[in-house]
Amino acid sequence: MATRDLVQLEAAAVDPPQRLLLGPGPSPTHPRVTRALGAPVLGHLDPAYVAIMDRVQAMLRAAFRTTNRVTLALPGTGTAGMECGVANLLEEGETVVVCIAGYFGGRIAEMAERYGARVLRIEAPWGEAIDAEAVRALVRSAGRVKLVAIVQGETSTGVLQPVEEIARIAHELGALIMVDAVTSFCTSPLDVDAWGLDYVYSCSQKGLSCPPGLAPVTVSERAMAAIRSRATPVRSWYLDLTLLEKYWGPERQYHHTAPASMVYGLHEGLRVVLEEGLEERWSRHARHARAFWAACNALGLDLLVDEPLRLAPLTTVRVPDGIDEARVRRELLEQFGIEIGSGLGPLRGRVWRIGLMGYGSTAENVLLITAALASALRSQGARPDTGAALRAAAEVLSS
Amino acid sequence: MATRDLVQLEAAAVDPPQRLLLGPGPSPTHPRVTRALGAPVLGHLDPAYVAIMDRVQAMLRAAFRTTNRVTLALPGTGTAGMECGVANLLEEGETVVVCIAGYFGGRIAEMAERYGARVLRIEAPWGEAIDAEAVRALVRSAGRVKLVAIVQGETSTGVLQPVEEIARIAHELGALIMVDAVTSFCTSPLDVDAWGLDYVYSCSQKGLSCPPGLAPVTVSERAMAAIRSRATPVRSWYLDLTLLEKYWGPERQYHHTAPASMVYGLHEGLRVVLEEGLEERWSRHARHARAFWAACNALGLDLLVDEPLRLAPLTTVRVPDGIDEARVRRELLEQFGIEIGSGLGPLRGRVWRIGLMGYGSTAENVLLITAALASALRSQGARPDTGAALRAAAEVLSS
Repeated sequence: MATRDLVQLEAAAVDPPQRLLLGPGPSPTHPRVTRALGAPVLGHLDPAYVAIMDRVQAMLRAAFRTTNRVTLALPGTGTAGMECGVANLLEEGETVVVCIAGYFGGRIAEMAERYGARVLRIEAPWGEAIDAEAVRALVRSAGRVKLVAIVQGETSTGVLQPVEEIARIAHELGALIMVDAVTSFCTSPLDVDAWGLDYVYSCSQKGLSCPPGLAPVTVSERAMAAIRSRATPVRSWYLDLTLLEKYWGPERQYHHTAPASMVYGLHEGLRVVLEEGLEERWSRHARHARAFWAACNALGLDLLVDEPLRLAPLTTVRVPDGIDEARVRRELLEQFGIEIGSGLGPLRGRVWRIGLMGYGSTAENVLLITAALASALRSQGARPDTGAALRAAAEVLSS
Repeated sequence: MATRDLVQLEAAAVDPPQRLLLGPGPSPTHPRVTRALGAPVLGHLDPAYVAIMDRVQAMLRAAFRTTNRVTLALPGTGTAGMECGVANLLEEGETVVVCIAGYFGGRIAEMAERYGARVLRIEAPWGEAIDAEAVRALVRSAGRVKLVAIVQGETSTGVLQPVEEIARIAHELGALIMVDAVTSFCTSPLDVDAWGLDYVYSCSQKGLSCPPGLAPVTVSERAMAAIRSRATPVRSWYLDLTLLEKYWGPERQYHHTAPASMVYGLHEGLRVVLEEGLEERWSRHARHARAFWAACNALGLDLLVDEPLRLAPLTTVRVPDGIDEARVRRELLEQFGIEIGSGLGPLRGRVWRIGLMGYGSTAENVLLITAALASALRSQGARPDTGAALRAAAEVLSS
């Protein structure tokens, strides 16, 4: 194909505009991470690459607060992390209790059904917390339950679910506990070993502020023992943890060609996280979220979730009556280059999803999204008090 | 965690050495691709990102020589492309004929067994071609065969298999044909529509010279019809083509967070391929391979594969008697920064795998690997005629 044909394909060089990503994800990539992406690609057996994998594992363990040997980055997005857990921890006919209070809980249930598990659902309305006592009652009455699964930070609703309590119940009743930490990892308190979590997965974007494409996971020895004693092989070869542990472990047994550039980005993203400190990072997310919530309150905007349940990195803001939801998003994108998210499922058209995650969780972004949102509301005839909102935010930020 | 703890983790900034990747993969990343990786990450619903996806699809179709609507990049390595085909095209109890003449054919068979298919193997010794008549006889005798699967360019052996002929047989007998083009895509003749291939997958590295991490795939309408009429859902949600087609199609139905940086790299890699022209690219790989083969001959090195069957991007060189295979690789890496590969499976210790792929397939790399290999052989007491080898290579290069 000659250059002329390429012109017909309109394949100019890729030149995406700079956006400020304040939606449910991806989050803004940290500039140090962006620079790391360009480091020279190595083969996965190169001693220099092996050393990088080892450091990534060590830093992931620190970020997950775990000593789990099987702690690694899957070559896929956060959804691959979800599927890896379902595919490895469940065999056909085994029972899983899935806590569903939003889109991603529903996705876990759908995956588990595809893999032939018996799926028992504990549901809560979108925007509310799962009732731990209901989980206890269901697991008790369900016969042998292999796994309890829950999404810690539901990106579809903005709720931080009571994972620690649900994990305790799962263990009391002899089940394993799988936690979706896609949005909560490195943004909200998460303590894998102290809480006894058996399988936790996340993504490389959001809290880590790397580009999307890798899924950090950590697996307890108890969960690995259950996987090793399966009666049937894991259906997925690509996501089989008994193969992946030999690839990331001292055996270095070939499994897949390492996505080296993404792993370099993850390495740098983890360095940024650990330099800041986990608790400092959680506090930063909480502080900027509280400032934004105060601003919303002053703008007269209602939030979907009651404050004690709110997820710091992702806020669901109710769309006021008479406001065109999509037009607000379009104006933010076109006038200010800011991306925010729309609602999913039953919340479509009813909320905006606004993320202050990772590198995006800054005091200046709190002011900017407040001012931009106020501007977009005013252009539809609303009269929010922008000054009061910015003062409310600033008060929290300086406290 | 404070900076002091980070130091204990030895987590210095990632700083991989520059290697010349002349093994079985990854191949050297094209510098234009490396620069594209750093472009700003966008959300997958951003109109600017949607336009980039459309251009990637159009360029992938051109590179695969297909009009297949379902042509896209999976968020995983080439192995995810393999698993996607097996998981979508086969249901439990269905029959697949797998052509196995190397490591990757065996991997397809193992995956198909995990998904519950009845797997019939046609085997050929490593380094030889699959016998098309044997495929015909087996498919004829096997009852209803859903799928025939073959690896076009076996990276474990360096053989280019007769895909066009096997595809014709599969169709005559009413089966679908799946082709692994991980190494052959953009390095060797491949004509998806003219050959009637139903499912073809590749990777972003090797012929495309992007970093590893994406799997370009193309799916015929006949294969999509078979997938849509499945009696059971695809086990893998992550790799379900009926979901992925709605994500890459005009529906833009949310499936996974786009690995935007990798997609930018793929976009640039495809531009480089199409600017050069597919046939020019195939010729370049063939010319540089022939030059290297001539050099090997002059060095007294035997090649595993008979010339008519040889895969241009990857040559398997027999280790001469009395030469320490691993020491040669170590010297190439440590003295010259050149990575080559060792043998897999029955070829372990018996061959080197030397790749001249994508951006790595250059006249200067032919001279360099020839001279470096000669040097490493001499350091073990062999007395190859380096001058003659370089002259033999140069003669082909200038012809």
